[in-house]
Amino acid sequence: MTQLTSQLAAFAAGPVTTTASARLVTSLSALDWFAVGQAGQDEPVSKIVRDMVFVEQGAGQAHLFGGGAAPGRSAALANGTISHALDYDDTHFAHIGHPSVAVFPAVLAMAEMRDLPLVEVLEAALVGMEVSIRVGLWLGRGHYQTGFHQTATAGAFGAAVAVGRLVGFQADGMGQVLGLVATRAAGLKAQFGTMGKPYNAGLAASAGVEVVQLVQRGFQANADALEGSFGFGATHHGEGNLEEALDGLGNEWLFEAVSHKFHACCHGLHAALEAARTLDIAEPEIAEITVRTHPRWMSVCNQPTPTTGLGAKFSYRTVLAMHALGHDTARLDSYSDAVCADPRLIALRGRINVEADESLTETQAHLSILRRDGSRSEATHDLQAPLPLATREERVRTKAAKLIGGALTDEVWSLLRTGGRAADLAERLA
Amino acid sequence: MTQLTSQLAAFAAGPVTTTASARLVTSLSALDWFAVGQAGQDEPVSKIVRDMVFVEQGAGQAHLFGGGAAPGRSAALANGTISHALDYDDTHFAHIGHPSVAVFPAVLAMAEMRDLPLVEVLEAALVGMEVSIRVGLWLGRGHYQTGFHQTATAGAFGAAVAVGRLVGFQADGMGQVLGLVATRAAGLKAQFGTMGKPYNAGLAASAGVEVVQLVQRGFQANADALEGSFGFGATHHGEGNLEEALDGLGNEWLFEAVSHKFHACCHGLHAALEAARTLDIAEPEIAEITVRTHPRWMSVCNQPTPTTGLGAKFSYRTVLAMHALGHDTARLDSYSDAVCADPRLIALRGRINVEADESLTETQAHLSILRRDGSRSEATHDLQAPLPLATREERVRTKAAKLIGGALTDEVWSLLRTGGRAADLAERLA
Repeated sequence: MTQLTSQLAAFAAGPVTTTASARLVTSLSALDWFAVGQAGQDEPVSKIVRDMVFVEQGAGQAHLFGGGAAPGRSAALANGTISHALDYDDTHFAHIGHPSVAVFPAVLAMAEMRDLPLVEVLEAALVGMEVSIRVGLWLGRGHYQTGFHQTATAGAFGAAVAVGRLVGFQADGMGQVLGLVATRAAGLKAQFGTMGKPYNAGLAASAGVEVVQLVQRGFQANADALEGSFGFGATHHGEGNLEEALDGLGNEWLFEAVSHKFHACCHGLHAALEAARTLDIAEPEIAEITVRTHPRWMSVCNQPTPTTGLGAKFSYRTVLAMHALGHDTARLDSYSDAVCADPRLIALRGRINVEADESLTETQAHLSILRRDGSRSEATHDLQAPLPLATREERVRTKAAKLIGGALTDEVWSLLRTGGRAADLAERLA
Repeated sequence: MTQLTSQLAAFAAGPVTTTASARLVTSLSALDWFAVGQAGQDEPVSKIVRDMVFVEQGAGQAHLFGGGAAPGRSAALANGTISHALDYDDTHFAHIGHPSVAVFPAVLAMAEMRDLPLVEVLEAALVGMEVSIRVGLWLGRGHYQTGFHQTATAGAFGAAVAVGRLVGFQADGMGQVLGLVATRAAGLKAQFGTMGKPYNAGLAASAGVEVVQLVQRGFQANADALEGSFGFGATHHGEGNLEEALDGLGNEWLFEAVSHKFHACCHGLHAALEAARTLDIAEPEIAEITVRTHPRWMSVCNQPTPTTGLGAKFSYRTVLAMHALGHDTARLDSYSDAVCADPRLIALRGRINVEADESLTETQAHLSILRRDGSRSEATHDLQAPLPLATREERVRTKAAKLIGGALTDEVWSLLRTGGRAADLAERLA
């Protein structure tokens, strides 16, 4: 095994020291994943994948969002797809991707098959997501810019070792798992904006389950296929940032920096909405708002006058006007054609300007509000600035409650924090 | 849809004019695929994949090599893997890959699910394999040299449209299928020499079935994800040989140039063995043999003194000595540890020289035999030189009979040529 693979394999197979904060953030991501998955279970892509799987009538090894159960590989495919359908799940900027949707569906399926306690699910998921992030760092921005969807590519490696941990693989087995999944880790950014994007996440989760099930049975692969010559990195425009990828491995949990989405719209709009939250503004006072944002977002989410709920999710002017008018940008049903047609919103939107600013990073936004009384307030927000843990917990739980109701949120949170079994969580996916 | 995709989609969805020779060669590849698959059903990788699939207890939609049935996606995964396990299936040098093992498992699974006649299976397979070859040409040698296993990458596109044809997709649906499979077509050459190589073929076949089942249900993908910006070609070191890929599409069947393996050893040895066949030599006469071959093969299949049956499959000197001693190089059981230890073979092997020759292509070999009486015979063979159709038929049927017996060979050949149903063939996979 070459260096990255051997280090990741040893890390994934060995004992780990988790901190209270890493455990809390993992539980928050699990709750967040559960909530966005359940909220997305009736999306068209969710129904399509579920239907394909159910027609196969396999053993009910693992539960699916939306109800029913299927073999582990299929459950992981469906749940990975479904939980990314709304694009409302967590993001890790170093990964570059969404760690939860590739890893949780895979570990939960295998844990349910083996009737494991949730504490093992959470530890395996944390280890797996840490590996996704480390592989993502190793592949680097070049891999992403070339066109690979890191959620799925780097994510497949994390999913595979997370599942491998649940079945007790030692470093050798983990090396096999990393080598084998290298031959099928895939996913193109060309699918962004289509059902192919969430499907990519499902593919990664399912690949994680499948390669472990093969290696369990004695499958022999090339353990150097991640980083060897002709390996995944070499063939997929990886940058090979070895030092960065291994820095602090085992001592530091990069996963803790994961960012949860608190608005049900394009991530490019979140920093501006968070800045607005700090200014405590209401529509009647506003004379004018100016948003400054990284130039990259101008072509992504700066629709000036959308007329549909979907369009609103990609419009600085619309979401800021919604916020000022008291609409809850965390709720899925706030983004509607009706809100886009509201004369008050249209009037306010006309007083909002969006400007590109090279001096800002992609996770920053600056807001300047001029009030009718001539006073001006300004705020800058950076999504990468860590939230206090108590605030994160409060906000993730509040978001979940808006998506799946307060009672189920409390129930799931209690399971995650006090240690139920995998099946207890899985049976609640419906 | 961009140009390659739109042309391939129209071709795959439309009426095609098949020639008698294209139909015959397709039937020969079907028989060859059937025989090598059945002969490989007890290989370790075959047992592993079959076991994983059967544990899932899904609906018996399609039969597997080795017996039993499973959902279509799983049957394609298993049969693709099993039929490539021996690496004894057909090769297309322009593709660069093995067309049958990605496409036949996929079409047969879907055809059995829909109870279609074999004539439709064969036409869809021909169309699919032609698309694999055209995509392979478009990706070019650069894609292969970078480290991609074209059997699996280009093969997934062929498998997908072949299955799409069986369900009656028009050009739009075919575009969706090509675009969706682009996000999961994968397979690394880093797996060569491991179980990962046949698994790659299974992945391609299974992907073909899965994407069609999704598009049938209304899945929306980016139809330009094969060749658009950030598409499969752009991200996977494709050369983009558009003219070459589309030249003669619909009028000319590049598939007809497929090459069947008539020796159960590394393809690099076949030209030399074919040259030896023309010289009618027997061991007692031989003073010395000199083989000249393309330099590339010197590091692939020039083991000087192997001691195992597996090693013999990668040794010019051993297979030529086996041939001269009357061992049948088409039979799997000819390659044994015992034959490597035979003093007569060891003595003859010592009189065989292997030389690299830059002037030969990779498919050519030159043989020079010096007899004890001082006479010398020479022969050159090129695997790309077309065999007369009658010879091809005779040799493929003879090979099949050696692998699965004459009675079953005749039965399958009769089904393929006189038009049974898909289920008739599928039920004989066991």
